[in-house]
Amino acid sequence: MTIASFFTRASRALKSTSPFCSNFLLLCALSGGGVVALSESQSEAQHPKIEDREPRKKKVVVLGTGWGATSFLKGLDASLYDVQVVSPRNYFAFTPLLPSVTCGTVEARSIVEPVRNIIKKTNGEIKFWEAECIKIDAADKKVLCRCNIENLVGSGEFSLDYDFLVVAVGAQVNTFNTPGVKENCHFLKDVEDAQKIRLSVIDCLEKAVLPSQSEEEQRSNLHFVVVGGGPTGVEFAAELHDYIQEDLIKLYPSVKDKVKITLIQSGDHILNMFDERISSFAEQKFTRDGIEVQTGCRVLSVNDQEITMKVKSTGSVCSVPHGLIVWSTGICTVPVIRDFMQEIGQAKRHVLATNEWLRVEGCENVYAIGDCSSINQRKIKDDIIDIFKAADKNNSGTLTIEEFQEVMDDIIVRYPQVEYYLKKKNILDLRVLWNDPQGNEREEIDIEGFKLALSLADSQVKSLPATAQVAAQQGAYLANCFNRIDHIEEHPEGPRRFTGSGHHNFRPFSLHSSHQSL
Amino acid sequence: MTIASFFTRASRALKSTSPFCSNFLLLCALSGGGVVALSESQSEAQHPKIEDREPRKKKVVVLGTGWGATSFLKGLDASLYDVQVVSPRNYFAFTPLLPSVTCGTVEARSIVEPVRNIIKKTNGEIKFWEAECIKIDAADKKVLCRCNIENLVGSGEFSLDYDFLVVAVGAQVNTFNTPGVKENCHFLKDVEDAQKIRLSVIDCLEKAVLPSQSEEEQRSNLHFVVVGGGPTGVEFAAELHDYIQEDLIKLYPSVKDKVKITLIQSGDHILNMFDERISSFAEQKFTRDGIEVQTGCRVLSVNDQEITMKVKSTGSVCSVPHGLIVWSTGICTVPVIRDFMQEIGQAKRHVLATNEWLRVEGCENVYAIGDCSSINQRKIKDDIIDIFKAADKNNSGTLTIEEFQEVMDDIIVRYPQVEYYLKKKNILDLRVLWNDPQGNEREEIDIEGFKLALSLADSQVKSLPATAQVAAQQGAYLANCFNRIDHIEEHPEGPRRFTGSGHHNFRPFSLHSSHQSL
Repeated sequence: MTIASFFTRASRALKSTSPFCSNFLLLCALSGGGVVALSESQSEAQHPKIEDREPRKKKVVVLGTGWGATSFLKGLDASLYDVQVVSPRNYFAFTPLLPSVTCGTVEARSIVEPVRNIIKKTNGEIKFWEAECIKIDAADKKVLCRCNIENLVGSGEFSLDYDFLVVAVGAQVNTFNTPGVKENCHFLKDVEDAQKIRLSVIDCLEKAVLPSQSEEEQRSNLHFVVVGGGPTGVEFAAELHDYIQEDLIKLYPSVKDKVKITLIQSGDHILNMFDERISSFAEQKFTRDGIEVQTGCRVLSVNDQEITMKVKSTGSVCSVPHGLIVWSTGICTVPVIRDFMQEIGQAKRHVLATNEWLRVEGCENVYAIGDCSSINQRKIKDDIIDIFKAADKNNSGTLTIEEFQEVMDDIIVRYPQVEYYLKKKNILDLRVLWNDPQGNEREEIDIEGFKLALSLADSQVKSLPATAQVAAQQGAYLANCFNRIDHIEEHPEGPRRFTGSGHHNFRPFSLHSSHQSL
Repeated sequence: MTIASFFTRASRALKSTSPFCSNFLLLCALSGGGVVALSESQSEAQHPKIEDREPRKKKVVVLGTGWGATSFLKGLDASLYDVQVVSPRNYFAFTPLLPSVTCGTVEARSIVEPVRNIIKKTNGEIKFWEAECIKIDAADKKVLCRCNIENLVGSGEFSLDYDFLVVAVGAQVNTFNTPGVKENCHFLKDVEDAQKIRLSVIDCLEKAVLPSQSEEEQRSNLHFVVVGGGPTGVEFAAELHDYIQEDLIKLYPSVKDKVKITLIQSGDHILNMFDERISSFAEQKFTRDGIEVQTGCRVLSVNDQEITMKVKSTGSVCSVPHGLIVWSTGICTVPVIRDFMQEIGQAKRHVLATNEWLRVEGCENVYAIGDCSSINQRKIKDDIIDIFKAADKNNSGTLTIEEFQEVMDDIIVRYPQVEYYLKKKNILDLRVLWNDPQGNEREEIDIEGFKLALSLADSQVKSLPATAQVAAQQGAYLANCFNRIDHIEEHPEGPRRFTGSGHHNFRPFSLHSSHQSL
């Protein structure tokens, strides 16, 4: 496939989806993820192999019931494996609608589905245990789990052996160890959080209308603070504004002019992971609606009455009384994953690293998807000599554009940063890469010229955002791989191995191709 | 109205309602209430009087947002008074459906209505404060309230003056001070209770299917215990049985035969406040369904693993492991009402006593409706001489049946126990009362004969059951009185005053007549 044809295909795919979807995809592609993978480990795709035809099915243990795990379970041919799912939450939640649940736009029951309903619909017997994985023992291929439901008669601890482990435990709210946040702030990570916020918002209004309240106390009780200018915080602030202005004011007319919503963002702009135009549109809309946006502010501490923050530019510290705070500043790794990373030599990373086929680096038979992991994309500069050799069929020491075009499809699949780079530079014709630094056309290119032409692409390596869409696509991708593992060795469909011979069994995970093909 | 015509009317009224309704009314009339009023205070109806035509409206403070209070607020002409409502719960709940909420048959949101919605629909400005009344100061005509919402900025305490106070705070669960009940049992009094039970039932099943569970532990986790064989307990046990057998077993097929429901009742039969046939039907149905009914058992204590009870007949004590207990053994007075009763000389009673017009005895301008109060019905034997005098128009010292028939309508309104007595004895013709003890017909009757004929009726004085229907009818009755207070003095509609002259302003509250007329 030439680059031109690639772009035609990609643009067709984008156009065929809804306008929202295409924008969303584009934004995902353009925006940097929260955490950049640090390691450059060389490990390759190692997909499950069912070596023999014993009657015993291989054991697959899935940790989690969020977007990644649920998508994996829905896609998996459960008759091929002995599947067990472990999660402290026995339901799947449609998390992007959580901000709407906080204001009753959507009912909580409408965005959840019991896991037992989901697994009943599969074509094999999937077992589910409502418990938390407290230790992953990769050496012995087992996980230790504990059930935390109250008043359990008997022991709630058990361990499960696995042949393949799929880690999809998600992440937890990052408080950056800010004092008082856990005790005094609401989060917006789970259905229960959203329901609590809904009740607390009403509580604030009930408090404010009490006959014992001074006007100052009313204003304090009606000061809603959102910390974090990411999509969740912004969407919640907007929903809350509409909820108060359109619904609650009718029931509490006396406090109409005393409600205030403040959005605190440590960066210079809200929604700064998206295009500048989106972020400035949101800021202007908020200003028109009377939502105060305080950028460049870092929260130092929170107590039950006040939130204390530092204005970065001036260094001044101020404390403001609040009625309710929603803390939504991003996510961090859960304890069991931190311990696991320690065990497998990933202690210095921020998040569990996988290769491009979603297998955890430094660890056999363990896969990780969704917010708990990040793909450690191989750099093209590390393989550039092998690529040059593979492309230089006649061993001339130089490549013609035709020789290059022959390997370009495989390069784009194996190193998607090349695609982002070309897109960013608006390069539609490969010949542009062939030009020398002065912009003159060349017939052929040597290894140094080739390095120069492609190595810049590595600057476009980026983590995928921690979104529901990524997790869901990863789950579906992995299920698809698990389903076809028996036949794939004979018919590998991955890109050619530049550092070895033959082809990779599977195409690496990619947000686009996964979206198109699954 | 003759007795015969009364019965014709009553029976028409009963037939015109649905079969369920008529049964229910009948049951209410036949069954004894939980608490018998002890005092025989003489106080009379004292309904609010708007003495002058000042612009200041009289202040009505309503405590509560349950059946009684809500029905009062809906019926009240709010333009006549300055109305304020205080309750820690800012919604009305349709409590008879709570057992259905525990099993998801009905969603919690479907059985609640925000109080602010309710008061918005009235034709005056009613104020609502989400707070708990912590002291009723009848001497100074004010109530002290406290808001218990978390993280309140400023003081949550305030006091409200009233001209008329309507106490409708309901009751609380009676644990009979059984150790461990508060900590380890679920109640079924409020929407939140029902929601917690729903989650806990699922939790029990999740616990039971864990791989670490022995069969014995599974059976313990799946042992659902209901304490109390009243309507709530019985209905919950039945709903739970259906929920597990019809829905949950599909999701947890492995534990199908290990679920057990036990209903513990201290009396000899469940539903013993109703007709014997109902109670034995329920017991037989439960036995067929595999719900174990343990009658004659008293619970001694509860902990997180076991429930300990004593079999009354044998005196043996046994402890049984449980997964979940729902405690539903009846109600008792809330602390603020106990303090209030102490203050107004009702310390020895079990529940706040009102006269037949719902005014609290020993206390001016305070009314009480619903579960927090009980009507102290005046005995006919205390007024029998006055009644005889009033009926004996020609002062002959004897009454003819015609003279008696003339006062009978007023007697039945003022002393409803007479009606119950006649009904119970199947007396359709008053002449039967006229017979002498040997059953011979008499033309006239003297005072002693009159006493003999009517005094037995006092054995039929009974408290109304603590049901939603009674509370709602009392609220509607009281609102109707409050609405017409200005005009009623000139056109009294109550029964004649046998112990004085003239008529009572209003008819006393009666479950039937209120049901018909409002």
